Amino acid sequence: MRLNSQQLKEFDELGYVFLPECFSDEEIAALRAEAEAIYRTDRQEVWREKSGAPRTAFAAHTYNEAFRLLGAHPRLIEPVSQLFSEPVYMHQFKINAKAAFEGEVWQWHQDYGTWARDDGMPEPRAMNISVFLDEVMAINGPLMFIPKSHKHGVLAAGHDKETTSYPLWTLDKETITRLCEEAAPPGGVGIVAPTGKPGSVLMFHGNLVHASPPNLTPYPRKIVYLTLCAVSNHIRTPTRPDWIAHRDFTPIAPVPDDALLQYARAYKVAAE
Amino acid sequence: MRLNSQQLKEFDELGYVFLPECFSDEEIAALRAEAEAIYRTDRQEVWREKSGAPRTAFAAHTYNEAFRLLGAHPRLIEPVSQLFSEPVYMHQFKINAKAAFEGEVWQWHQDYGTWARDDGMPEPRAMNISVFLDEVMAINGPLMFIPKSHKHGVLAAGHDKETTSYPLWTLDKETITRLCEEAAPPGGVGIVAPTGKPGSVLMFHGNLVHASPPNLTPYPRKIVYLTLCAVSNHIRTPTRPDWIAHRDFTPIAPVPDDALLQYARAYKVAAE
Repeated sequence: MRLNSQQLKEFDELGYVFLPECFSDEEIAALRAEAEAIYRTDRQEVWREKSGAPRTAFAAHTYNEAFRLLGAHPRLIEPVSQLFSEPVYMHQFKINAKAAFEGEVWQWHQDYGTWARDDGMPEPRAMNISVFLDEVMAINGPLMFIPKSHKHGVLAAGHDKETTSYPLWTLDKETITRLCEEAAPPGGVGIVAPTGKPGSVLMFHGNLVHASPPNLTPYPRKIVYLTLCAVSNHIRTPTRPDWIAHRDFTPIAPVPDDALLQYARAYKVAAE
Repeated sequence: MRLNSQQLKEFDELGYVFLPECFSDEEIAALRAEAEAIYRTDRQEVWREKSGAPRTAFAAHTYNEAFRLLGAHPRLIEPVSQLFSEPVYMHQFKINAKAAFEGEVWQWHQDYGTWARDDGMPEPRAMNISVFLDEVMAINGPLMFIPKSHKHGVLAAGHDKETTSYPLWTLDKETITRLCEEAAPPGGVGIVAPTGKPGSVLMFHGNLVHASPPNLTPYPRKIVYLTLCAVSNHIRTPTRPDWIAHRDFTPIAPVPDDALLQYARAYKVAAE
């Protein structure tokens, strides 16, 4: 799958592209069931909220077949390779839970800020491409983006180790206010929160400023994030475990477009 | 102003009625400026978040002329008297800030639960009628309602004194999940979050279950809540200060419909 010229223009101007319903219900049902099974394990890769509810599961593509297929899926790998004009490798792989009632805030941040500071990634030639496993609604903790904020490079940030269980380099109120003013149309608002059905895909620039509110509802909001990095831009000075910031810089060879679907069908038969 | 038969039916079935843009920009601008001035004072009636940002200001109708006029406004008093078929008095008056960046969560609760337990109000013959002073958007901490949940009477609740600076009788996850299942249309979701321009009015049943997420954005979300109680249903055994749960049970005599507008115009002239 390749982005068209309109999508490329949008990505350049706004810093993100939303692709509704890229994956089918069958594909997503298998991934959702596997994600829930992973959250029930006590692997070191599963991080929890202060309440004990799952917050994120790292590196599932290395130990789970469904997520291995997703992590090499052409609908995700190809658009990112296209944008970087070179092959990509997997820098990070997360399944963020934003669990019903328990999913906590992610404060305003840029992902590339962390990849640069903590992992020694040379340039913002990596980005997140995410897959909704549940419906993302305005009420269950959607991602909020500040459009155009990716044009500012790496902004000054503070290391927040208190607010949630997950340490994050976060931006201050003055910076967010200024970025929102710049992003807002006349009389409007400088924040967007794309919502959509399970199977929708959202790709966004490594420097795009984003946050998400907690989830107070009974409706979980699981999203898988593949962080794909241009191979030539591999990390130089990692400080985090290799299941958070991977050291395998092999270019990803995409699987066939129907590989996940075939897996999901076999999976369904096995479950019956 | 009276509710029409469609609005009465909606209120009975769903537990709330939304009335977009009931107040004009001029009226709201004056109220907004006065609310911000009140938040800057250190009166005992102004409660703050743990961060120090304003959370709510009580009883402003007793010490501020703009809010005195709002607290006796026919667009608010008349629909509630109509529903209760008797005059109403002011049980509580709040300006909730949900401040930019700082406004914290209000967990799932029923207001009448608190009025009954803490104030000795005999029946749920009181309700909130609220006025948006800022635009309420999906991103800045809107009220979330579970439609039809007002049909269940007072639900069992726990007294949460920890989550925020404001003690609240809150409902547990199992109850919320069950109520959402009952409220949801087939394949749908059992939560609504009405949004709208400044000046919009939202009235809701004292037993309607509601919550609101924190506000992570630079956009404040101030709402004034008049809690109007049928005079015959006045509280019997108050435990809270009289500026939180009022002891003056005098029926409210509405001011003229243009009283707030005239005030706002004079106010604007004075400011110039």
